[in-house]
Amino acid sequence: MSGTSLDALNAMTAADFVAALGAIYEHSPWVAEAVVARRPFASLAALHEAMSDTVRAAGDARQRALLVAHPDLAGKAARAGTLTADSKLEQGSAGLDRLNDDEFDTIHRLNGAYAVKFGFPFIVCVRRHGKDSIFRQLERRLGNDPAQEFATALDEVVRIGALRLDAHVRAPDKLPVQGRLSTHVLDTQAGRPAQGVAFELHELSAHGEGRLVARGATNADGRTDTPPIAGRPVPIATYELRFAIGAYFKARGVALADPPFLDIVPLRFAIAEPEGHYHVPLVATPWSFSTYRGS
Amino acid sequence: MSGTSLDALNAMTAADFVAALGAIYEHSPWVAEAVVARRPFASLAALHEAMSDTVRAAGDARQRALLVAHPDLAGKAARAGTLTADSKLEQGSAGLDRLNDDEFDTIHRLNGAYAVKFGFPFIVCVRRHGKDSIFRQLERRLGNDPAQEFATALDEVVRIGALRLDAHVRAPDKLPVQGRLSTHVLDTQAGRPAQGVAFELHELSAHGEGRLVARGATNADGRTDTPPIAGRPVPIATYELRFAIGAYFKARGVALADPPFLDIVPLRFAIAEPEGHYHVPLVATPWSFSTYRGS
Amino acid sequence: MSGTSLDALNAMTAADFVAALGAIYEHSPWVAEAVVARRPFASLAALHEAMSDTVRAAGDARQRALLVAHPDLAGKAARAGTLTADSKLEQGSAGLDRLNDDEFDTIHRLNGAYAVKFGFPFIVCVRRHGKDSIFRQLERRLGNDPAQEFATALDEVVRIGALRLDAHVRAPDKLPVQGRLSTHVLDTQAGRPAQGVAFELHELSAHGEGRLVARGATNADGRTDTPPIAGRPVPIATYELRFAIGAYFKARGVALADPPFLDIVPLRFAIAEPEGHYHVPLVATPWSFSTYRGS
Amino acid sequence: MSGTSLDALNAMTAADFVAALGAIYEHSPWVAEAVVARRPFASLAALHEAMSDTVRAAGDARQRALLVAHPDLAGKAARAGTLTADSKLEQGSAGLDRLNDDEFDTIHRLNGAYAVKFGFPFIVCVRRHGKDSIFRQLERRLGNDPAQEFATALDEVVRIGALRLDAHVRAPDKLPVQGRLSTHVLDTQAGRPAQGVAFELHELSAHGEGRLVARGATNADGRTDTPPIAGRPVPIATYELRFAIGAYFKARGVALADPPFLDIVPLRFAIAEPEGHYHVPLVATPWSFSTYRGS
Repeated sequence: MSGTSLDALNAMTAADFVAALGAIYEHSPWVAEAVVARRPFASLAALHEAMSDTVRAAGDARQRALLVAHPDLAGKAARAGTLTADSKLEQGSAGLDRLNDDEFDTIHRLNGAYAVKFGFPFIVCVRRHGKDSIFRQLERRLGNDPAQEFATALDEVVRIGALRLDAHVRAPDKLPVQGRLSTHVLDTQAGRPAQGVAFELHELSAHGEGRLVARGATNADGRTDTPPIAGRPVPIATYELRFAIGAYFKARGVALADPPFLDIVPLRFAIAEPEGHYHVPLVATPWSFSTYRGS
Repeated sequence: MSGTSLDALNAMTAADFVAALGAIYEHSPWVAEAVVARRPFASLAALHEAMSDTVRAAGDARQRALLVAHPDLAGKAARAGTLTADSKLEQGSAGLDRLNDDEFDTIHRLNGAYAVKFGFPFIVCVRRHGKDSIFRQLERRLGNDPAQEFATALDEVVRIGALRLDAHVRAPDKLPVQGRLSTHVLDTQAGRPAQGVAFELHELSAHGEGRLVARGATNADGRTDTPPIAGRPVPIATYELRFAIGAYFKARGVALADPPFLDIVPLRFAIAEPEGHYHVPLVATPWSFSTYRGS
Repeated sequence: MSGTSLDALNAMTAADFVAALGAIYEHSPWVAEAVVARRPFASLAALHEAMSDTVRAAGDARQRALLVAHPDLAGKAARAGTLTADSKLEQGSAGLDRLNDDEFDTIHRLNGAYAVKFGFPFIVCVRRHGKDSIFRQLERRLGNDPAQEFATALDEVVRIGALRLDAHVRAPDKLPVQGRLSTHVLDTQAGRPAQGVAFELHELSAHGEGRLVARGATNADGRTDTPPIAGRPVPIATYELRFAIGAYFKARGVALADPPFLDIVPLRFAIAEPEGHYHVPLVATPWSFSTYRGS
Repeated sequence: MSGTSLDALNAMTAADFVAALGAIYEHSPWVAEAVVARRPFASLAALHEAMSDTVRAAGDARQRALLVAHPDLAGKAARAGTLTADSKLEQGSAGLDRLNDDEFDTIHRLNGAYAVKFGFPFIVCVRRHGKDSIFRQLERRLGNDPAQEFATALDEVVRIGALRLDAHVRAPDKLPVQGRLSTHVLDTQAGRPAQGVAFELHELSAHGEGRLVARGATNADGRTDTPPIAGRPVPIATYELRFAIGAYFKARGVALADPPFLDIVPLRFAIAEPEGHYHVPLVATPWSFSTYRGS
């Protein structure tokens, strides 16, 4: 299904169209079927709007069936290997395939409480959240009243649909589902971009170990050849960018204290808008540094 | 022995003087005996100079005996509880009384190699070093040649002596053995000192867990009522000062992202001069921060 | 009159007391007379309160007479040399004795309009204002209604009285009439206070030339031996602190561009609270600098 | 002559080629004539190299004649209006057409001394220098010995030729003669780019008034739609970028002091490499700001 063009979708048979987009909404090809006749779509945005409007207008029974069609997060389907291809990738993106026992027990317990209270599984657009944020969402949403939570769950289903469309359909336009996290290292001792600074980006977790998201070294412009996170939502999470600034200055022949005052410099920050553009620069000397949310 | 005044030391009998200062140099009351007749001492610095000159002029045999009189770091004496009172406090200050098994095995092996090579135990002024730095010193000094290392060990003995004198003798002057680590939090969103910011100071370790050195909250001037480290050497180590800046801004009613861009801000830095004055401020808004080595 | 102690004021004859404090309120010894019998005063604050309460309770006629007793700012009395000693010093402090022709014409015109509207001369506690601020005050207050302005003028009279008391009476307590402007230069290329940085403090003016308020060089701690402004109100004005940071780095042997990227660094800021404590540091390398309102 | 394409130059008659490029070297069409036969030129760089090689290989007599063919800076030709079109634009670019009497006298005196010492007029690539820098160059180069200065003058002639070629010939490649000065304003109180900040760029002068180089306001990304200086060398000079940050924060509804602590913020810096890329950002809150040489 990956990489079908919008033009091809507009031109293919109805059956092929439904085959191509039937999985955008989990186990619910009726959404694709409902929009076949509205072709051609002038843009990916128009296609997404048609499909999401179909979901939002479907009435309580079909909507509830759509919600129920979703698997538990980190649940039996994940362990049994019976997730849809999209769900498997999505759950893996947030590290839900690598929970420790405590985390697994917690999510199992919360999922159970959620299902009892609302009658459908907890659904969240996991690509927009780090692991801790998913737990936090689950805890918060358990406190919602049923009508509120039904609406929230549908919103998440539409968000999942938008990301799946964006991943699977090639079109001149893009859906506004991608964020970016970039960085830049300035050496204000020498008044130039800092080239060759090794860095790592870690997603932190309050419950256990964090995980390495990206690593690399700055280029001649003090930037990274590709942003540490781009072309996808930046998951809501706490991060640390860690820069090996001591090794950089040492390699440049700068006389440093032993041990150097600054060696690995961590910048800790959190992302709240997965579709936002976050620029987190490091402006450093061997004795000082600063950062800010840039653009 | 604690808290004897310099005046009292100048006035007491020779026997009492030796009893008072006999432990300044480990199991070596002959150092105190040698300076009894030079009383009165005009200052603590003069007393220290007289005692350390005695050590440095004592000749190879007595010096070697002085070195041999020292206990192994984290060695049998520590486990058997037979350390001198000063040694016990000193070894505890660096966390050598809380080594994990790997660390204990490593130091035991290195101590052994050191003793075989040099004929005396590894001596270091532990109050000037964090745990990692002690391991690093031991590894480095194992590479010295015997003459070099003999001199280095004596230097450390004299440093230990200076700190013991500084701790046990009250005098108008102070020996230059104390450093200071202070901090200050400025809120540049409001243009005022940040009051009530909770902070922790951790000593980090590459080999295992770090340890909490100090904690507290900033006062009305954005400072701490007492510096996180003062009145003693600042151990050579890597530290993190962690500031709960998110909670501070939230308490002031500032609208923040959810989660806030900055919540706990860690400042990671290393100390290289235990007798230095290190000022590590945090200048912050909800969206930016900077630090530098101040004074 | 300068430097009389509070004790002496409490002990002297009524006539001497009135002679000593008769000029605290311009040409109005009746204020001092009214408080003679309330002696002894426990503090300077109590004395100030007694005198200012007398003014505030004096009734419209005496209050109006007190206002009328004040000279025009930069007016005929100033040119004729008939100002009271205090008024002369005060007007000189704000540079009102060095107005250019345009400024003189403007203030003469505004003073005239003010007197016509309110029936008393424009009174402002000039030690709390730079030259531009005095013009701004005059323009703003011309827009007040008579009752409002009568109250404002009395407030200024009391402020003048407080500063005169603070200057002329020695007492264990101080009135809260003094602010402070301090600075500090940190060299974050070398990680130490910047010693020997020449600086100038200028009060800027939108209407003409500014004037030099203070100059000097930083000491070993990167600070100034005395704050550029202390022991008096910091006049409401726009200032520039200018630091010769290029010469400093050159003297330290740092290789610089030709011309250096940073040579004279101006920090421009304004003071709004004359009794506040303003700390305006410069944190600099040859290629970067920052400042903030510190404390 | 402006805007001829390299292709056209390669294809035209020899006479037209010389007519088109005869003025690249002042009053010296022989340089163009010498390279006619080497056509076609694959790039603007190849054309420039051929012409500059011709100059450098021309021998002392022709080179001296080339130098002598240049007009005095701010000299009689300028006043008489007999400058070549290129020279007129170049001298105007540095403000040499707006000298005050003192400056005119100084340059006239120095030009005279220079001509007496070296036998040709002072030549400098004025587009690479601000007015003060031209005076400084003239003073410095007066101290050179004749051989050194002859070489320096030829270098300047070649720089002038490169800039004239770059301005007059359209080609796929560009000569490395253009620098850039850009800026960016970040609001770290709100954590976003500062939009709508009015700014001015002034070239300062030690000898008299500076001059306004550019003005505008920041766009939605906190940048300027076009860099304040681009597409040309950045003249060697001291500059001030002045930002109306007080008005910006006021317009955003931020409560400020009266007057605001920061209103117009000047960033003063100097350019030393006209072909360099200088990025000078302002990172600001109402109570703090910082800048650095970025990239």
